[in-house]
Amino acid sequence: MAVDIPIHHDETLDDLRLGGLKILQKKGGYRFSLDPVLLCAFAGFQGVERICDLGCGSGVIPLILSRTSDARRIVGVEIQEESADRARRSVLLNGVQDRVEIVRRDVRSVREVLAAESCQVVMTNPPYRRPGTGRLAPGDERARARHELHGGLDDFLACASYLLGTGGRFFMVHLAERLTDVLAGMRQAGLEPKRLRCVHSRYGESARMILVEGRRGGAPGLALEAPLFVYDKSGKGYSEEVLGFYGED
Amino acid sequence: MAVDIPIHHDETLDDLRLGGLKILQKKGGYRFSLDPVLLCAFAGFQGVERICDLGCGSGVIPLILSRTSDARRIVGVEIQEESADRARRSVLLNGVQDRVEIVRRDVRSVREVLAAESCQVVMTNPPYRRPGTGRLAPGDERARARHELHGGLDDFLACASYLLGTGGRFFMVHLAERLTDVLAGMRQAGLEPKRLRCVHSRYGESARMILVEGRRGGAPGLALEAPLFVYDKSGKGYSEEVLGFYGED
Repeated sequence: MAVDIPIHHDETLDDLRLGGLKILQKKGGYRFSLDPVLLCAFAGFQGVERICDLGCGSGVIPLILSRTSDARRIVGVEIQEESADRARRSVLLNGVQDRVEIVRRDVRSVREVLAAESCQVVMTNPPYRRPGTGRLAPGDERARARHELHGGLDDFLACASYLLGTGGRFFMVHLAERLTDVLAGMRQAGLEPKRLRCVHSRYGESARMILVEGRRGGAPGLALEAPLFVYDKSGKGYSEEVLGFYGED
Repeated sequence: MAVDIPIHHDETLDDLRLGGLKILQKKGGYRFSLDPVLLCAFAGFQGVERICDLGCGSGVIPLILSRTSDARRIVGVEIQEESADRARRSVLLNGVQDRVEIVRRDVRSVREVLAAESCQVVMTNPPYRRPGTGRLAPGDERARARHELHGGLDDFLACASYLLGTGGRFFMVHLAERLTDVLAGMRQAGLEPKRLRCVHSRYGESARMILVEGRRGGAPGLALEAPLFVYDKSGKGYSEEVLGFYGED
């Protein structure tokens, strides 16, 4: 089957290092990082019917979930046609098209194509930076993946809230420096923060990322879990915990 | 001088283990914990004219600040007469009455006795629990120190905001499980969260407490600092970092 799926000259077919998954990525474009891997490991749910990943980019999270979850339906939403097309071809290359669907759509208009309360889990590794912060090359696929050009944090949260019924679970990875935006915004959107994990590169350093779980309509009260350290004490290799996320490879 | 200061039969005079400070505490009442010590170590400011500690209880924070800061004026606000009286006597016992003043007042009516924007730093180790959560013995001094019976988190934040001018610094220790209340409430009160440190008893365990610094009128953007571990790896003694807070003793 794979022989029929085009790989463009400006793309590479890479090994996700998770369950034998392959992923198409653009040369010099936005390339997947550790963040979606950490998010999927943090989430760790089972027994779910339908999952949605908001802003799926090249499809890393839907692909991982096709291996690690038993969900019957995994929907990836991505606004950029080029990324969505690449995600669709990666879905075919991995032969998971019976469970994974990629929808090209702005999170601000998802309600036109997906029904309210139609998912039990929503995940997102959204654009991290507000427009006007950090470097930005307009029109660049990478810039659009990193900056809130097509919907900001609150749009992603409103979309997640729309897709989840009461008790539905929301998982997000974001910048540590935006923790207040994240927690206050989640509560505002009706996605009460229930678990938080701070991700530090190394022991003794400030956190770079946060992993957070919210519950649609949940009661206040947060578990602030043990910190996650990405690198080992030598600082050269991944920590045992992170290596464990790649355990089956 | 100390011979003139009464110590009641239901009180003990204890060693704060910080700079030779002594503190009066009620037998069987609320007794100081590590939390104010962690808060003072976290704050670590200098060159400040006037500090206020909201809900000072027996006066632990004002006493520590009388040693660790060069502030000219340190005001402790406490609603419970018994605690305020005990704090006043501890101030006298330590001979710091020229710099430390204890005011008996509800944080909700502080504006009747203290001027707006009159402090450069506000600290608080407030009651942690909402009324109706956890065990509560009404009328008990200890219960009032632990539960939000006389002003909740938002009242403490509004009071801090009133006392600080633009750029003024706010430091608080609170329960980890209330992190969302804390960050969203601080932003709402105009005390933008700028630093956060999670306090874990031991490596690998969830955080129990949080230490947070806010800036009156500050811009969004938080530094999520390295976690603080209270106990050493054996789990029996304090960690080196916590022992360091007691360094001069």
